[in-house]
Amino acid sequence: MGTSGQERPVVRVGLLGCGNIGGALARLLLSDGEWIADRTELDFRLTRVAVHSTALDWGVPGIGPLLTEDAASVVADPEIDIVVELIGGTKPAKQLVLSALSHGKPVVTANKELLAKHGPELWKAAAAAGVDLLFEASVGGGIPLVRALRESLAGERVQRLVGIVNGTTNYILTRMTASGASYEEALAEAQSLGYAESNPTADVEGHDAASKATILANVAFGAELALADVYREGISKVSPLDIVAATRLGFVIKLLAVVEAEDGVIAVRVHPAMVPKDHPLASVHDSFNALFIEGASVGQLMLLGRGAGGPPTASAVLGDMVDAAHNMTAKGAVRRLELHHMPLKPIDELRCPYYLSLRVVDRPGVLSAIAGVLGEHRVSVRSMEQDAPETETTATGAEEGEARLVFVTHPAYERDMQACLHVLRHLDAVHEIGGLIRVVGA
Amino acid sequence: MGTSGQERPVVRVGLLGCGNIGGALARLLLSDGEWIADRTELDFRLTRVAVHSTALDWGVPGIGPLLTEDAASVVADPEIDIVVELIGGTKPAKQLVLSALSHGKPVVTANKELLAKHGPELWKAAAAAGVDLLFEASVGGGIPLVRALRESLAGERVQRLVGIVNGTTNYILTRMTASGASYEEALAEAQSLGYAESNPTADVEGHDAASKATILANVAFGAELALADVYREGISKVSPLDIVAATRLGFVIKLLAVVEAEDGVIAVRVHPAMVPKDHPLASVHDSFNALFIEGASVGQLMLLGRGAGGPPTASAVLGDMVDAAHNMTAKGAVRRLELHHMPLKPIDELRCPYYLSLRVVDRPGVLSAIAGVLGEHRVSVRSMEQDAPETETTATGAEEGEARLVFVTHPAYERDMQACLHVLRHLDAVHEIGGLIRVVGA
Repeated sequence: MGTSGQERPVVRVGLLGCGNIGGALARLLLSDGEWIADRTELDFRLTRVAVHSTALDWGVPGIGPLLTEDAASVVADPEIDIVVELIGGTKPAKQLVLSALSHGKPVVTANKELLAKHGPELWKAAAAAGVDLLFEASVGGGIPLVRALRESLAGERVQRLVGIVNGTTNYILTRMTASGASYEEALAEAQSLGYAESNPTADVEGHDAASKATILANVAFGAELALADVYREGISKVSPLDIVAATRLGFVIKLLAVVEAEDGVIAVRVHPAMVPKDHPLASVHDSFNALFIEGASVGQLMLLGRGAGGPPTASAVLGDMVDAAHNMTAKGAVRRLELHHMPLKPIDELRCPYYLSLRVVDRPGVLSAIAGVLGEHRVSVRSMEQDAPETETTATGAEEGEARLVFVTHPAYERDMQACLHVLRHLDAVHEIGGLIRVVGA
Repeated sequence: MGTSGQERPVVRVGLLGCGNIGGALARLLLSDGEWIADRTELDFRLTRVAVHSTALDWGVPGIGPLLTEDAASVVADPEIDIVVELIGGTKPAKQLVLSALSHGKPVVTANKELLAKHGPELWKAAAAAGVDLLFEASVGGGIPLVRALRESLAGERVQRLVGIVNGTTNYILTRMTASGASYEEALAEAQSLGYAESNPTADVEGHDAASKATILANVAFGAELALADVYREGISKVSPLDIVAATRLGFVIKLLAVVEAEDGVIAVRVHPAMVPKDHPLASVHDSFNALFIEGASVGQLMLLGRGAGGPPTASAVLGDMVDAAHNMTAKGAVRRLELHHMPLKPIDELRCPYYLSLRVVDRPGVLSAIAGVLGEHRVSVRSMEQDAPETETTATGAEEGEARLVFVTHPAYERDMQACLHVLRHLDAVHEIGGLIRVVGA
C-alpha cells in the first residue's frame, strides 16, 4: 500500500472473476471510487481483473485495460495489495486463494462452496500468513451477518441460528403460498425471472443452503464440519396441499438452515419447516434472506436483506475490503477463525413438533389405528384435522372413499417419527404419506 | 493491559453505574468470565464499579469489594484499562467520559442522551486522545446496527434509515392494534408490565427516539446535528379510530425515526406513520426494535431485536469492549467518527402520502367542499372512505348527524397538508380533525 495525495492509503485491488458480483464491484470501484475514498479514507485502485477471456465484453466501462487471463500472476503480483476472489466453485479458486495468502495478501471472497468444502485449510493458511481471509458475502449476500456473529456477538453465548439463506427456494415457496401454484409451476416462474437456474438442483435440493449452514457453524461456534455431515432435505416434495394446510394451521412453510449447539454438541440441518405465522422469519418474502439468532444475553435477533444479486453482494465484499485494508495498516487487528472439532448430533436425536399429512381409506377404525401407531412410538398428537370425503378432490387430494388426515404433534424424536412412518407405510389403510414437515420456532 | 497465564491480554474494566444494564454486564463478567475469555481470547477483569451508594445491595454476587462511590477516581485510575459508562443522563456522565478519554482510556457507553446532546464534543475528544469511544448499545439495545452502518456499510451509499427505536411506544401501538385498547389503556398496561415509566413523556412524546435518530444521522451520514433540530411527534394523539382505519386500509401504525439524505441535505424526523402491512417493519411487534436500511448497492436491509433490557444491551456493550480491547493492541485500528455540517431539510419540504381523518357534518356538499380545499393545495386524493351515519358511534367516533371521512392522499408536501388543515379547521362543516399520519414505506 502506498499513499495518495490526500494522505489516504492507496489499496491496489486484484479482482478474480467479473461475473454478476465481480462486475458490480468493478463498476462501484471504477465509477464511485472518489466517493468511496471520501467515505472510507481508503483509495481503492482496481488494478488487475482476471477473467477467462479478455476477448469478451464484460459490460463494465473502462475495465478493458485491466483485464488479464493470467489469474495466477495476479495473486502473486507484488503490485497487488489485496485479492478479491469472485470466481466461485473450488477450481481454480482454491489454489488461487492459497497462493494469494502465501504471498501475504489478504483475500476477500464470496465463495460459499469453497469455504464449506475447504474452509479449515484456508483459514489455517490465512492464520499462518497473518493476513485476513474475509467472507461476509458468502452467506446472506448483502446482510452483515458474519460480522454480527464474529464481532458484535463475540462475547455472546449464541445458542441457535435459523436462517432463510437461499433466495430461490424462498421465492418458490412464497409463490406457492400466495398463488396456490404447484412446486413445478413456481419453479418455472422462478426460472423465467432468472431467480432459478435451468438446472435448479443446487438450490431446490438444499445443497446451497447446506454450504451456508456449514459456514454459519464455523463462524458462530468455531465448529469444524464436513459439508457431507449436514442433514439436508430440499423443497421439491412440498405439495400445494401442505401449503394450504400450513396456512389453515397458522404456519408458513420455509426452507430453513438450522445450526444449534448445546453442551458442546452441534446440530446442523437444512429442511423445509413449518414456521408460526407471527414469527419474524414468516414475514421474509420472495427472494429475501434472513438470519434469526438466539443468544443467552442478546435474546432474539434477526437480520434480513438481499441474499443474492450483484450489487448487494458487492456491497458486502466492499465492507470486507475496507476491513482488510484497515487491518493491513495495523497488523495486530487481523482476526483468525480457529476451528475445533465438535461432536455432531445425528438427525435421529432431533426433537420438535411435526406436521404429518396422510391419505387414508375413509372407514371407521382407521384413525384409531393410526393414533395407535403414533402412541406406541411416544408421539403425542397436538391437533388432527380430517377432510370430509365429500370435499372436492382438488382441494384435499383425497379420492372417492378416501380421507386426508393432517396431524400436528407435540415435540417428538425424529427417530420415533421415522419409525411411525415405517409402520404407517405398511398399513393397508394408508394410501400415501403426503408430507412430514418439522415445526420450527413454535 | 497485561497478560494472563494463557497469554491472553488482561483488560481491567472500570464500570460506571450498576443499574439494569450495568448489573447485567457485571453479572456476565463475574460469572461467565472464563467462557468469555475462551471465546474472545481476552481476559476481562471487572476491577472497579462506581455507584452512588456502596451501602445498597446491587444484586450482583461478588460485586461488593469492587464498589466505590468515587467515579472520578475510577476514570483516572492507572489500574483501569477501559471504562464502561452505564450511568445514563448527561451529568456527571459527560465529565466522567471526557476525563476517561483524556486519561487515554477507551470508553464504551450506552448513553443515547449523552451522545445526542454532546456527541461531537465527545468524538473530538476521543480522536484527540487516539482511543475508541464506542456506543453500539446506545441505539437498538442488542441489535448490532451501529457496527453494520460503520463497518459493513462503510463503502455503501446509504440513502435512508427507518427505525422502530423505542420499545415502549411499539408495545403500546401493538396492544392498541391487537386489542382495540385506547392509548391510555395500553399505556397503563405497559406501565404495569414495566415497559413504560411512571412518567412516560420521554418515550411517548418521541424524545428518546429523537436522541437515537440523532445518533443514527451521525453514524450513517457523519452529519452533525442538534437534537433540538429533529422534528418530533409522539403517539399520544393516535386514536383507536386511526388504528381501525389503518387495519382496514392495509397499514400498521408505528412510531418511526426516519433519517434520509439526498444531494448533501439531511432530513431527520420522528413521528407516527402508516406502514404497509407487508413491509418488514410492520411485523416488528411488542417491545422489539428494528432498523430498516436502504442503500444504493445493498438494497434493503433490516436488523431486528431487543432494543432494551439489561442482558441484550449488556451483550452489545460487551461486543464493543472486545473491539476496544483488540484496538488497544493495534492502535491504528481505532476508527474515528468525524462529523460535518449538513443542511437540514425542514419538515415543510417533506413529501409523502398522508392519512387524514375528519369528523364532519353529514350533509350534501361537504365532501365536495373538503375535496376542493385539498385540490386547491395540490393534494390529490388516492382513496376516501365515508362511514355511514347509521354506523355505531363507538365504531366510527361520529355522532348523530355526523360522518367520518378517511382520506389517503397521493404524495403531497407537508406545507400543503398543513395549509389544508389550517383551512379545514375553520370550516363549519368540519367538527374535528382526527388524525394526520404520514405514510412511510409504500
